[in-house]
Amino acid sequence: MTVQLRRDDLHASVSDPESASMNFLNEVAARFPDAISLAAGRPYDGFHSTDDLERYLRGYLAHLEALGLDDEQRQRRLLQYGRTNGYLGALIARMLLVDEGIEVPEQAVMVTSGCQEAMVIALRGLCARPGDVVLAVEPCYVGLTGAARLLGVEVVPVPESADGLDPDTVPAVAAAVRASGRRPRALYLVPNFANPSGASMPVAARRRLLDVAAEQDLLILEDDPYGLFGLGDEPRPTLKALDTGQRVLYLGSFAKSCFPGARVGFLVADQTVVDAAGRRTLLADELSAVKSLLTVNTSPVAQAVVGGFLVEAGCSVRAAGKAKTAFYRGNLRALLAALETSFGDDARVRWNTPAGGFFAVLDVPLTVDEAMLETSGREYGVLWTPMSFFYAPGSGGGRRSIRLSCSALPPERVGEGVRRLAELVRDRAEPR
Amino acid sequence: MTVQLRRDDLHASVSDPESASMNFLNEVAARFPDAISLAAGRPYDGFHSTDDLERYLRGYLAHLEALGLDDEQRQRRLLQYGRTNGYLGALIARMLLVDEGIEVPEQAVMVTSGCQEAMVIALRGLCARPGDVVLAVEPCYVGLTGAARLLGVEVVPVPESADGLDPDTVPAVAAAVRASGRRPRALYLVPNFANPSGASMPVAARRRLLDVAAEQDLLILEDDPYGLFGLGDEPRPTLKALDTGQRVLYLGSFAKSCFPGARVGFLVADQTVVDAAGRRTLLADELSAVKSLLTVNTSPVAQAVVGGFLVEAGCSVRAAGKAKTAFYRGNLRALLAALETSFGDDARVRWNTPAGGFFAVLDVPLTVDEAMLETSGREYGVLWTPMSFFYAPGSGGGRRSIRLSCSALPPERVGEGVRRLAELVRDRAEPR
Repeated sequence: MTVQLRRDDLHASVSDPESASMNFLNEVAARFPDAISLAAGRPYDGFHSTDDLERYLRGYLAHLEALGLDDEQRQRRLLQYGRTNGYLGALIARMLLVDEGIEVPEQAVMVTSGCQEAMVIALRGLCARPGDVVLAVEPCYVGLTGAARLLGVEVVPVPESADGLDPDTVPAVAAAVRASGRRPRALYLVPNFANPSGASMPVAARRRLLDVAAEQDLLILEDDPYGLFGLGDEPRPTLKALDTGQRVLYLGSFAKSCFPGARVGFLVADQTVVDAAGRRTLLADELSAVKSLLTVNTSPVAQAVVGGFLVEAGCSVRAAGKAKTAFYRGNLRALLAALETSFGDDARVRWNTPAGGFFAVLDVPLTVDEAMLETSGREYGVLWTPMSFFYAPGSGGGRRSIRLSCSALPPERVGEGVRRLAELVRDRAEPR
Repeated sequence: MTVQLRRDDLHASVSDPESASMNFLNEVAARFPDAISLAAGRPYDGFHSTDDLERYLRGYLAHLEALGLDDEQRQRRLLQYGRTNGYLGALIARMLLVDEGIEVPEQAVMVTSGCQEAMVIALRGLCARPGDVVLAVEPCYVGLTGAARLLGVEVVPVPESADGLDPDTVPAVAAAVRASGRRPRALYLVPNFANPSGASMPVAARRRLLDVAAEQDLLILEDDPYGLFGLGDEPRPTLKALDTGQRVLYLGSFAKSCFPGARVGFLVADQTVVDAAGRRTLLADELSAVKSLLTVNTSPVAQAVVGGFLVEAGCSVRAAGKAKTAFYRGNLRALLAALETSFGDDARVRWNTPAGGFFAVLDVPLTVDEAMLETSGREYGVLWTPMSFFYAPGSGGGRRSIRLSCSALPPERVGEGVRRLAELVRDRAEPR
């Protein structure tokens, strides 16, 4: 007798609604390959080639040699099992200092198999008991809500404003959680050019949020994949750079600054942990037990590639990434200009004006669900992401809003994509 | 006010006893670097060099070119986000057919960030509800029990015999689980040269286990990292090769056949899943949602390295790995010969005679706990692993047994390690 498994006998994360949404997006993209995708939030393909891999590997090996590792040690470093928290702590700590003014010891850095694993590890370590929940800005990056579902951790939404998360909305949400007997452990957000909304927090609000977190005894999970890509050069301090009380765990990615195929991210956890005997350790070291149970350690081969990239960049991805920053600025400007051209005269349509990053949000006078996306791909040749994908299922949030991404396109395609989208809106707008 | 976290406010997996044990082992090894380690179960360092990395990368790129991928497609394959279940399905399915006689479609293969992630994904997908438990052979590989603890899945031990897991012990354990209102979902074991015991199941017992699994409606999680390294050349069918009813999920590793630094493993899940509407899918495809929430996908750079290795090996790691097999055979024979030389006259000491793999178990007339291991490192210059690490904490199992590993040592050191261990046993044996 051959086994037949029932789908509803598998874990809820298998039927993760966000995964299903992303699968749907991928399917639609595959069915309409000629459509212009304002849906794909991946980085542009043009910055790296496979030749870079060998150069980075050699650069990292030369770096290890300069540090005094002999042949055998270098070989072991790349090919053998290795340190659970990885080998890039010093280079990443240097990068954070140079680029962001974040000062943390290298021991506080854990290298992860992409930023997604960093989220899983942070949530797993911090949410210890059934009533431990994580607060998260809504609309929210699906990787965070998915990681929580995988672990059975409840996510409580905190609504975002046009200026990103408003710190003064946090206490009431935390109080309601506590009143129900649960414990809010941490608050997740993307302060710079958020995915999906594009919103950013003003500096004053960042400082205020750190105060609120201290008052509410919350840790902050700061996710910052887009911080490099501001439209202007003005400094934009991360929460972690402002964090004098070690409230912030910082989630980092090299997917946009280097390339996604390395699958290397990191977690900064410089908090002190005290055990019953008074022994003090670093949170990053405690969380290494979780990391070892998930993936043992991040591929040292992948770490070497990113290590070589960092060495070549002199540990400043800001300085080394100027071409990338210029490209994404150009695309975002092209997107905003095209929105003005195509929708400037239509009072029923509104959009925000992000100060950087990969995304903007367009509010439209029609319901933009999966069926409408399919219509858009088939009849109008343009793809986008329903904002409803980023709200709690059933909440009704984002029903008439679209996430537009401009990161993966050649710049000359952005305007044409928006023009096609304008046709859809013109044809399908619902009567008032 | 600076945050101070309480260790007992972090998740139980942070204080994972197995992680603590492994940390203790690593600390002891670091403190006594001149001790001979019969503890380290890692592969020998001498088979690969960092030069192999570039050769494998080029080999995989040439393979992709032969498959018809142009420059741009090859670049995207290695550097961009990629398919959740990875790109090595066809090469791995071919390897499984050639080397193991396992016939599965390439779509049933998920590439994972090491075998550890495959365990987490399988457990997470299958154990859907609080009462869903996994049965596992005891003594058990700590990666499995740790993965279960991370997910809050209970592990119910099934005691191992000298011939590995005895299928006829399973029904009573499963019945007891059911009687307590829980549901046994799967049974984990290592049928070939188990870690830690070295035991192997006879072929007849393998067939019987598949029948028992069908009777008890259990899935089997077959972990097979050591199958290549039998002392003899006789065929030793995996459970998956014998599995006509799709009862078996097969967990694979390239850490020993290729090298650990790639951190590439895989999961074979060819089971059919049916949803409420009668739609049929492959379990591997369903589990991809879990994989995407853990690590998005396995580093395509790391996959390319292993892909190049497989292409170079003609998809037969058995044929290509003859030097590795010969080395490990030599070391295991040296270990068994040294045990005979050092302990053959001591009736108080017994050991098993594994038919292959990296490990053997020595029963000694003394309690071999962490304190004794430290003494052994400091005073006798030899390290080993207490078998108690592989039993449920507090069970008292393995208190007077030692796991000996011979995989990481140059062969000439094995005998000297055992000689030193014999001194410890002679000096520290407890009076009868």
